[in-house]
Amino acid sequence: MNRSSEFDLIKRFFSPLTDGASGAFGLTNDAAVWRPTDGCDAVITTDCLIAGVHFFFEDPPELVGEKLLAVNLSDIAAMGARPSAYTLTAIFSDEINDSWIASFATGLRYAQEKYALDLLGGDTVRTPGPVTLSLTVFGNIEKGSAIPRGGARANDDIYVSGNIGDAALGLQVLRGELFVKSKHDAEFLIQRYRRPQPRLKIGSALVGIASSAIDVSDGLSADLGHVARQSSVDIDINLKDIPLSEAAKECVEAEQEFFDSILGGGDDYELAFSANINQRNAISELRDTLKVKITKIGKAVEARDFVNPKVQFLDTVGENIFIKKDGYRHF
Amino acid sequence: MNRSSEFDLIKRFFSPLTDGASGAFGLTNDAAVWRPTDGCDAVITTDCLIAGVHFFFEDPPELVGEKLLAVNLSDIAAMGARPSAYTLTAIFSDEINDSWIASFATGLRYAQEKYALDLLGGDTVRTPGPVTLSLTVFGNIEKGSAIPRGGARANDDIYVSGNIGDAALGLQVLRGELFVKSKHDAEFLIQRYRRPQPRLKIGSALVGIASSAIDVSDGLSADLGHVARQSSVDIDINLKDIPLSEAAKECVEAEQEFFDSILGGGDDYELAFSANINQRNAISELRDTLKVKITKIGKAVEARDFVNPKVQFLDTVGENIFIKKDGYRHF
Repeated sequence: MNRSSEFDLIKRFFSPLTDGASGAFGLTNDAAVWRPTDGCDAVITTDCLIAGVHFFFEDPPELVGEKLLAVNLSDIAAMGARPSAYTLTAIFSDEINDSWIASFATGLRYAQEKYALDLLGGDTVRTPGPVTLSLTVFGNIEKGSAIPRGGARANDDIYVSGNIGDAALGLQVLRGELFVKSKHDAEFLIQRYRRPQPRLKIGSALVGIASSAIDVSDGLSADLGHVARQSSVDIDINLKDIPLSEAAKECVEAEQEFFDSILGGGDDYELAFSANINQRNAISELRDTLKVKITKIGKAVEARDFVNPKVQFLDTVGENIFIKKDGYRHF
Repeated sequence: MNRSSEFDLIKRFFSPLTDGASGAFGLTNDAAVWRPTDGCDAVITTDCLIAGVHFFFEDPPELVGEKLLAVNLSDIAAMGARPSAYTLTAIFSDEINDSWIASFATGLRYAQEKYALDLLGGDTVRTPGPVTLSLTVFGNIEKGSAIPRGGARANDDIYVSGNIGDAALGLQVLRGELFVKSKHDAEFLIQRYRRPQPRLKIGSALVGIASSAIDVSDGLSADLGHVARQSSVDIDINLKDIPLSEAAKECVEAEQEFFDSILGGGDDYELAFSANINQRNAISELRDTLKVKITKIGKAVEARDFVNPKVQFLDTVGENIFIKKDGYRHF
């Protein structure tokens, strides 16, 4: 297999991703200099993808690169921040050749241009284990304005962006656990799993409006659970209000149990957030300005058990539905 | 083996390392908020250690934690910056149990208290491969003041802190490739390999004095080579001026070829830097104030071949010595 040395690799595939950013020193330095925007806090997030755990080794490397950046940017979006730069720790296994790395870098390039950030630095090493890709994103937000995860208050409305559950169903299609008749629908669900779209514009617009926010990566049920515990409130969600794509609706109509995947599965990378009821007009405006789907799906209420705040999914008659799969965990 | 879930792990072993830093949210958030010092640039560096590649799986986990932080801090030191916070991506293999993680966290705690920084965030995952620990450090430095790697000019003096080569010899002792008669000396060399001391105070004091700096991690020869190429100068080093510990001197006296390890081996984590000759007094003062060993070992000269600037090691009669091992590469 064609394999360059570490220095060649960096020069050929990664240095171009710095786009000449001065603090990156063309990746010839062990440290980078990043200039935060004056008056801003830095928002930092790091997430890694491991072959065989978080992606299939056979996945197209472009999509791995794109997804690696996207999942980190989703965390930046949930804080309401604007991304600025990233560092990459690329841990390659022996089965990885130059052509894989070139495609992976193409995926990073695609996402970094779409979301306007540059590579600043990192580390490139070889491992006897599986390919492991760890990325850290730096963003800016006006001092003290980051949207907290623990800011939901009783009576706040709960919203989500976009549709929920497509990615979990897409993963099941890929695994052969779900057969979708329409080829178009199957492809749509798979793409939703493979190519998450971080909701940066929505996140940024929610600063000053949302009382709490989280990105839906572990599954709606698990992620709202984090918000509930951090905020010490219960969260009541009306099942019928959860926005589903046409493809997801078809799945659920065919087999009701796929609703568990929709609520418990992860990888949606939509935003779930709470807002005081006084913000309803602001959210309507935001929906119109950004031309995005934002749906009210429930409300925060006083925790019934203060030691154990939780999320309830209610059916049309207000009965609590039991979710089998409480968040997909890679761990 | 006793293994906690991801959330328990974080809560038990890693959350305490945040020391209540508000932007860490007790590690309950996917992103962290870091407030850079006003008027400062952020210096960012990331380095990872892989079991079997960068450390022995049997190494005491405390020392792995301490070293992981130290090697990253050494890059911060070379830029002249002050460390402030770090994020950790801990990728554990199945053989890692809670007791290993507890000891590893103890090592991080020791180093973060010594060098005054807190854990801010990160990611914890399981891998089918070897334990992989990736750490990113954030530091502050006055805007535009980071010491560049490419700033050496012809006629600048070249200096190093401390002694060179102990760590490479220590690694050879551990590998059974070098037998050192004195048990005390053997232990000393091993400790120099296992417990690098990042030169943060020296780095910080060199801002405005050094024209370029690098930490000696790949080996004096390789690292000065980076400076030479980035600065487009040749670097001439007088072999006899390279500072050696008593233990290292004993090794070289017994077997001259260990000089190759000293110049070519890595892991010293001392600083090598260049400075204009007008800075000699300032460097003398710094040596006295900080009570550290700083030795002039050579000078930068016009590159003899502009396409290929390089490092020469000169013996007592000015003859160029050929170094066999040009930097230890893990790649």
